[in-house]
Amino acid sequence: MSHSKIIPIGVAKQFIERLMARLDVDQTHAKALAEVLVAGDYRGHFSHGLNRIEIYIKDIQENSCRKTGQPKILKETAATAWVDGQNLLGPVVGRFCMNLAIEKAKHCGVGWVCAKGSNHFGIAGYYSMMALEHRFLGMSFTNASPLMSVTRSKEPFFGTNPISLSAPSSAQNDDFVLDMATSVVALGKIEFASRKNESIPSDWVIDKNGHSTTDPNQFHALLPLGGPESSSGYKGYGLATLVEILTSILAGATSAPNVRKWTANSDEANLGQCFVAIDPNCFAPGFEDRMQTLNKNLRSQDPVVPSQPILVHGDPERSHMEKCQQLGGIEYHNNIIQMTERLAKKFQINPMESIAK
Amino acid sequence: MSHSKIIPIGVAKQFIERLMARLDVDQTHAKALAEVLVAGDYRGHFSHGLNRIEIYIKDIQENSCRKTGQPKILKETAATAWVDGQNLLGPVVGRFCMNLAIEKAKHCGVGWVCAKGSNHFGIAGYYSMMALEHRFLGMSFTNASPLMSVTRSKEPFFGTNPISLSAPSSAQNDDFVLDMATSVVALGKIEFASRKNESIPSDWVIDKNGHSTTDPNQFHALLPLGGPESSSGYKGYGLATLVEILTSILAGATSAPNVRKWTANSDEANLGQCFVAIDPNCFAPGFEDRMQTLNKNLRSQDPVVPSQPILVHGDPERSHMEKCQQLGGIEYHNNIIQMTERLAKKFQINPMESIAK
Repeated sequence: MSHSKIIPIGVAKQFIERLMARLDVDQTHAKALAEVLVAGDYRGHFSHGLNRIEIYIKDIQENSCRKTGQPKILKETAATAWVDGQNLLGPVVGRFCMNLAIEKAKHCGVGWVCAKGSNHFGIAGYYSMMALEHRFLGMSFTNASPLMSVTRSKEPFFGTNPISLSAPSSAQNDDFVLDMATSVVALGKIEFASRKNESIPSDWVIDKNGHSTTDPNQFHALLPLGGPESSSGYKGYGLATLVEILTSILAGATSAPNVRKWTANSDEANLGQCFVAIDPNCFAPGFEDRMQTLNKNLRSQDPVVPSQPILVHGDPERSHMEKCQQLGGIEYHNNIIQMTERLAKKFQINPMESIAK
Repeated sequence: MSHSKIIPIGVAKQFIERLMARLDVDQTHAKALAEVLVAGDYRGHFSHGLNRIEIYIKDIQENSCRKTGQPKILKETAATAWVDGQNLLGPVVGRFCMNLAIEKAKHCGVGWVCAKGSNHFGIAGYYSMMALEHRFLGMSFTNASPLMSVTRSKEPFFGTNPISLSAPSSAQNDDFVLDMATSVVALGKIEFASRKNESIPSDWVIDKNGHSTTDPNQFHALLPLGGPESSSGYKGYGLATLVEILTSILAGATSAPNVRKWTANSDEANLGQCFVAIDPNCFAPGFEDRMQTLNKNLRSQDPVVPSQPILVHGDPERSHMEKCQQLGGIEYHNNIIQMTERLAKKFQINPMESIAK
């Protein structure tokens, strides 16, 4: 029996749009959500794609997320803006803010936009990559529901607080894209090990007493990047704080540890997010060529294990997208397919139609 | 026998200024170097202070670092500038650029300045903290001599490529200061273990075959933050790349892996650096109060071990500075004292005079 199905990209997007239409979500908002979630899956980040659609549905059904409206600029200078996301869908707020940052960078060389009143926005990389269309550098950051403990503490405090940077290179389809949680790993990896009854490395999570554990079912909090204090976990903690400062503290959104829990969909999330665009032409000419040389120099490093070549950030996603191209769509695990079928039934819409492998 | 001596801050600074005067370094440049190096020691980062003075001396003696002149603005917009550091001392370039970023932030809300033609600039935190005097946020980044291997590779590629963020809080002497290498640890910790014949944790460094080692004498390259690939070392690698992009790639400086070796003082370093200032008043009012609340919330987390309270970034440095205040100066190890005595003899200047403990 096959464990997966191939769904063309357009089919997955349309499914999300049909769902959102049933919930009376503004059509352009539905499209934005579909774009961002399916981009996550297409890039291989399934934990930030269709897999999370039920969170968005609940947010809308419980009115903690608004279905129509526009983000609002509360304050701005030539290079900065403070935005109220008006509790709209995260992708609506994120796209609005990143477009604004890009416009500002066109005039000033840099655009720096912070939003309060936002919601989960999918992969952070989606927004930093928007800058690539203009051959700009892009950065994006968001705070999130508490999952990560800080060094020496027992309780979840920060979210996985991701950092993303995209930078254009002169070669075809070879841009740099960093998109990383500041925790050792994302929650998805723990859930995955738990489902498969596998143990996890001892430096990923702590149990409810604050002790390290290899049992994913004892998970109480993720450790910050670096793991325990002895291997510099306080640096990952520092980076998570950096993200919190650039997002909720600058924007006046709800801050860690007070962000609502993953499951508390009836409270407004009021997340804080930060979007930066930089025009490399304001600095040394030839940015894209130097970026490409850096990529090349990295990949030509001598590997420890010959069968494991050095990768550049963006390479695993490029491989995954190529695989999707060959398959004619995204290969979704049956768990996700079944979840969408339940949703189709519940909301009386057409399910996604897979194609033959 | 005592292993250390107490040197008042002013005495340490004047010693560096006397040394630089002997080498015909411009007096304001000498002062800048003294300020930054002694600030490193005062904050407890001895690996970036007086301990490294011989590198600066060699750079000047071998003419890879210029003694007089001014950094030059090559290109600018209201919010950005591209600067040629003219191969001047790193602290001269760093202060020039950060002041420029602050001026731009006063007008635009954000100032973003990148420099090529710079040199080692001491602790990155010095520059990000310059923004605090204006109650702005500051960030600083630099590339550096190759010491860190990238995930899967055997050879040093990046420097320790630090990230620093400073952010003002409303409480007296309680600003947030993150200043971290993107490697698991800095080189100083390996040198320290080697001198003491102690072993090191297995996820800090690799030997010349690319294998992990607990023997500091087998050190060939530092691992990126996160350590091996299995504990997400590729994220530290990604952050080191982010720093390289924002510094040498944006500024057109010498890029990894081509930055000169630590010992190659006759080559121009041509380091790349990046300085950012952000005016929090361009975003939600009340930044400093929210920052203070975040600090407070972090410190009030329940610790795993009751005797090890949760710290905020900047706390270890605050403790160290308090200790210095109590002692009446900085407590330097005799190795450093003896090194400065050798230098005093060699350059025929007065040595530092210590005070009684």
